[in-house]
Amino acid sequence: MSQNLRIPGPTPIPPQVAEALARPMINHRGPEFAAILRHVTERLQHFFQTEHPVLGFPSAGTGAMEASLVNLFSPGDQVLAVVAGVFGRRLAQIAEAFGLRVERLDVTWGQVADPATLAARLDSLPDVRGVLLTHNETSTGVTQDVRALAKAVRARRPDMLIVVDAVSSLSCVDLRMDAWDLDVVFSGSQKGWMIPPGLALIGVGPRAWAAAETARLPRAYWDFRGARRSLEKWQTPYTPPVGLYQALDVALEMMAAEGREAILARHHALGELTRRRARELGLALFADPAHASDTVTAISVPDGIDGKTLIRALREREEVIIGGGQDRLEGHIVRIGHMGYAHEPEVAAAMDALGRQLAELGHTPPAPVSARGPGPSAAD
Amino acid sequence: MSQNLRIPGPTPIPPQVAEALARPMINHRGPEFAAILRHVTERLQHFFQTEHPVLGFPSAGTGAMEASLVNLFSPGDQVLAVVAGVFGRRLAQIAEAFGLRVERLDVTWGQVADPATLAARLDSLPDVRGVLLTHNETSTGVTQDVRALAKAVRARRPDMLIVVDAVSSLSCVDLRMDAWDLDVVFSGSQKGWMIPPGLALIGVGPRAWAAAETARLPRAYWDFRGARRSLEKWQTPYTPPVGLYQALDVALEMMAAEGREAILARHHALGELTRRRARELGLALFADPAHASDTVTAISVPDGIDGKTLIRALREREEVIIGGGQDRLEGHIVRIGHMGYAHEPEVAAAMDALGRQLAELGHTPPAPVSARGPGPSAAD
Repeated sequence: MSQNLRIPGPTPIPPQVAEALARPMINHRGPEFAAILRHVTERLQHFFQTEHPVLGFPSAGTGAMEASLVNLFSPGDQVLAVVAGVFGRRLAQIAEAFGLRVERLDVTWGQVADPATLAARLDSLPDVRGVLLTHNETSTGVTQDVRALAKAVRARRPDMLIVVDAVSSLSCVDLRMDAWDLDVVFSGSQKGWMIPPGLALIGVGPRAWAAAETARLPRAYWDFRGARRSLEKWQTPYTPPVGLYQALDVALEMMAAEGREAILARHHALGELTRRRARELGLALFADPAHASDTVTAISVPDGIDGKTLIRALREREEVIIGGGQDRLEGHIVRIGHMGYAHEPEVAAAMDALGRQLAELGHTPPAPVSARGPGPSAAD
Repeated sequence: MSQNLRIPGPTPIPPQVAEALARPMINHRGPEFAAILRHVTERLQHFFQTEHPVLGFPSAGTGAMEASLVNLFSPGDQVLAVVAGVFGRRLAQIAEAFGLRVERLDVTWGQVADPATLAARLDSLPDVRGVLLTHNETSTGVTQDVRALAKAVRARRPDMLIVVDAVSSLSCVDLRMDAWDLDVVFSGSQKGWMIPPGLALIGVGPRAWAAAETARLPRAYWDFRGARRSLEKWQTPYTPPVGLYQALDVALEMMAAEGREAILARHHALGELTRRRARELGLALFADPAHASDTVTAISVPDGIDGKTLIRALREREEVIIGGGQDRLEGHIVRIGHMGYAHEPEVAAAMDALGRQLAELGHTPPAPVSARGPGPSAAD
């Protein structure tokens, strides 16, 4: 029995991708790799919904955070970070580590930022040069309304640099880099892209390219300009993660065959399924239901049950691997991932297992409607 | 017919490692990954010949360069970079990009640095806080005598921070991090470690740990301190390249079975074989023969032959993939890699193919001794 990996990334690998990962190594300076890089880049632009370059860095998603900051800003620049969870906070912390002046718009974890509040905050901060947003906060299972937030920013400050962490949403949840006029959008290979971790993907728009020319934060590894110069020759500035590119080429082929809209619809259906099954188990969803993520569902652990015990029971007795809460949410929530190579049967199986192990730990789900005794519609 | 990949990295992948790369994804926060990280770290310490932590970063080798600098130094610190090729120069350039004052000890490409010259240079630069060395200069096929260079440094300046780029040597060429008192030693997964690119490995000694506490260059992704705190719990500060760790675990198992000394001996034999075969073809070795690398051999392209044409002919007619010269050496040398999962048959086959394609391009090898007609020893 193999594991049912239901953490919010790394995600399961399709068999075709596994096969690609096992292929012989190739020369990263040869024509085969150049062809892969070209093909991958074109397909990435389709999924980023951008005509601008999408750069790949050998890195975790956290590296894409650092890359986005060091290419756009100079020491002492002020940025406004919308912080609604662990990953929004991480982006703000990296900005501070690099000597930016960071203002925070703190949002209650589990909730979304209000565009009007963001606009008002910006009005009070005339020096802000960049706004840092997290599209899908993996730690809380909330998807921010990036379109509305970006619109509110642009209405006041047309030249603002808008940086969007889309690590756990891109390709799964609609995000339109060009149409929404976003300057930097980044993602990570181990989420919606169905390949292992180790490749950060960063879309860079015209305002960001202009900023990269004048930004004075020190940079070398993450330099967008060098990456673009190399990409124009279908190369990379240093050794790329060749195996991940071979895998991504196959994964993107699968994704193109399924279709961008169909992938979004599949993720929405998986989100709905997970939320419905959680409610049927009598569980409270942590995220504001109006903004619950279609890639990861955060579920409050019922009173009297220890979150870590529940996660261990699922792993040891069911081979279902789910995520726990991070930081202040540790022990209080569990997180079910349903992104990338995810389909109804294995998500439903994970929820079945969750129900069984909650029952073992003494949780009583609400009785189904049909068992609540006779009522007005009982005879229907 | 599959390719005979003879570039100086990425290197071929053993079948057992390919199998590991195709395994199902696992939770990077779960007990299986923790066990792999622990096992891998212990084995890495054996091959780094160190008792100190060896950190892994999702990164190319170039990232390890940046990591080594930002953790040890502060803006304006002076460092002395020994530059004998493309990679030594890259390390110096990254130091400059981060605002260090970089002094260069330029060494003729193809040659090694002289310890006495380094010592004299240090005597003239009392403010230098770090010395940057490249153990194996992949661009020229030269192995520096790091032991002698480090000894010369320590004799004068016991507290000097010594940073060693061992990307294309570690595990293949003897390098004793603790015995030679080196402070930071880094390598890359796609060289001697027999796995794909995307994981940088960095050994960090006590002097470097102390420096990391006071260094003021900005850092977040590369922060050694965060990586060590996580490693103490057999975790990583952000998502690690899980697949590469699964592969590295298998590769290190193979390496442990072969034995550290046996691996060094195999690489020396491969270096000797490649150099002997090159001389038999009448080719000049680019590197000083006394310091020729046992992982990569740089061969001067004979007059009248175009290096790029030769490389293309080998690829298209022989499926043998070799490297060209970089930067000022482009077209002037070719480079044959013989590191990692490399053995006599495929290295010999590559040299056979090189001989055939050189002949096609009009190069005439010297007649073998036995065909040179009678001489003093002809009857021996």
